[in-house]
Amino acid sequence: MDAVNHQFRLAARPVGLPKPSDWSFTEEPVGQPGEGEVLVKVQYVEMDPAMRGWMSDARSYIPPVGIGEVMRALAGGEVIVSNHPDLAVGDHVTGLLGVQEYAVAHGAGLIKVDTELAPLPVYLGTLGMPGMTAYFGLLDIGKPQAGETVVVSGAGGAVGGVVGQIARLKGCHVVGIAGGPEKCRYVIEDLGCAAAIDYKACNVAEALAEHCPKGIDVYFDNVGGEILDAALAHLTRYARVIICGAISQYNATGPMSGPANYLSLLVNHASMTGFVVTDYLDRYPEGAAEMAGWLAAGKLVSREDIAEGLESFPQTLLRLFSGENTGKLVLKL
Amino acid sequence: MDAVNHQFRLAARPVGLPKPSDWSFTEEPVGQPGEGEVLVKVQYVEMDPAMRGWMSDARSYIPPVGIGEVMRALAGGEVIVSNHPDLAVGDHVTGLLGVQEYAVAHGAGLIKVDTELAPLPVYLGTLGMPGMTAYFGLLDIGKPQAGETVVVSGAGGAVGGVVGQIARLKGCHVVGIAGGPEKCRYVIEDLGCAAAIDYKACNVAEALAEHCPKGIDVYFDNVGGEILDAALAHLTRYARVIICGAISQYNATGPMSGPANYLSLLVNHASMTGFVVTDYLDRYPEGAAEMAGWLAAGKLVSREDIAEGLESFPQTLLRLFSGENTGKLVLKL
Repeated sequence: MDAVNHQFRLAARPVGLPKPSDWSFTEEPVGQPGEGEVLVKVQYVEMDPAMRGWMSDARSYIPPVGIGEVMRALAGGEVIVSNHPDLAVGDHVTGLLGVQEYAVAHGAGLIKVDTELAPLPVYLGTLGMPGMTAYFGLLDIGKPQAGETVVVSGAGGAVGGVVGQIARLKGCHVVGIAGGPEKCRYVIEDLGCAAAIDYKACNVAEALAEHCPKGIDVYFDNVGGEILDAALAHLTRYARVIICGAISQYNATGPMSGPANYLSLLVNHASMTGFVVTDYLDRYPEGAAEMAGWLAAGKLVSREDIAEGLESFPQTLLRLFSGENTGKLVLKL
Repeated sequence: MDAVNHQFRLAARPVGLPKPSDWSFTEEPVGQPGEGEVLVKVQYVEMDPAMRGWMSDARSYIPPVGIGEVMRALAGGEVIVSNHPDLAVGDHVTGLLGVQEYAVAHGAGLIKVDTELAPLPVYLGTLGMPGMTAYFGLLDIGKPQAGETVVVSGAGGAVGGVVGQIARLKGCHVVGIAGGPEKCRYVIEDLGCAAAIDYKACNVAEALAEHCPKGIDVYFDNVGGEILDAALAHLTRYARVIICGAISQYNATGPMSGPANYLSLLVNHASMTGFVVTDYLDRYPEGAAEMAGWLAAGKLVSREDIAEGLESFPQTLLRLFSGENTGKLVLKL
């Protein structure tokens, strides 16, 4: 194996949105897998808002990426050399392979996926981390009941798009919040939400009052900021707020903005609970099985937004924060 | 009955701290109880931070006091005329009697209390609303387990003082946050907390790190603001934050300050849940019975801070917001 491996490494901790100078594009010989390891040719890299958090050195659920290290990313690819008994050359796998063309990884940390059942990018989206995030966050924390009103922000994104669909499958009145008319059309027509609120074009608090006449029973928050505050102001008694992310805040350079309306929790006996998907690692098989069943039955739509070329990684990542992607944003190498 | 009844009525909705001109002190003949009603001579009026909320016309769990109405307050007194079969002249009762010398109230809305078991002010504190607030908020929402670390703010107050003691009875490591050396002494020596943090004299975040080396499993918040943020920064995995009040914010004239560190909920799979004590109205007997047992056994200390004279009501109420009271602040008429 004398091929060359290209990679993006973290060159500096970003202030605000990541800049080109926060990255270094490097080249090195492809690595040699040791005992129990495999060499994977990376085909798709998942672009995830969580990556922004991994670039900062604030205390979090996972250590930050070190300066000079290959940028951490979930990715999928094909095994081309295997020293692991459970993985064969030609198998497709997903895992933390990083933003690079070739990855050496221990077989135990990879998930083998069946690309005859679903294309590889689906395993980075609806059947991967974003899908599990939606599934466990909504069902385990939100506990939506048929007839309840569920609101989700980032409703056109990888997680929010699945949340809205699962809530619909559970018989809820689902309202999605998304940016722009095209995403709002997608949220209603393709994902089957009852209503969509274009936060770029209208007053979210007024729109929530209009579309949630009985109040919000479950709010799944991907964005934080003013939209979280608007949702808090419309909770029902015993409402559940799920804190999954706060994309409006990830690139903030000033102080973090907290939800000023949090005392709505007090008057409504409501709760606000956070989570990260790895809290549910031991239950992934359960979630993946039910999601795969819904996909196969045509009850769930999976949409990927596929960008091309490793070199475009820095600009592609920024599309998450400008809200340009619809569905799961994946970089094809 | 030709006595005169004196009362404090709400004259204007306060901006910031209530001013003398927000009240009118009025005089009228004592009312006549009708069918099912009783006339109560009010002896003790409970001073409660919630009263500040009742003076504002923001949407809440209870309608605001109307301009010109007698100020709403829980109070205790003696029945002097009874048209209700379950109440006799000489009985002691508590209920929403208002800030006045005599109250006419329907017997069904009053709680008859036994002043031979405990003095009347205790039924406005540890065996009343504040005690039930502490009991159900801590046990039903916080679910503290033996060996866990419980932090309570307003630890020298009516609610916080009971929270700290119940947490201690449950075998927790209890840290109280209070203002000033005398209150901190009270929190440790009289209430039995393991440590007290004087928020007026030290950096609360640093002190929490010192006194909660394993992190905070349960945080009972009465104050909001910077102290809530400091506690959020020290949560353990699966921590529970109980939102009982936000006294630091009640008189704010600018925008409400939300907890900037709320994403600590996300990384820790923690929850923040609010409540008002009336959510547990049907379970008061259960709480009162257990609390009375602890009091009788000397396991729980009840402390009341008794001010005197109806005329002092406006200034006495302000003592809650300057943090001058230790234990339940009650106005004796």
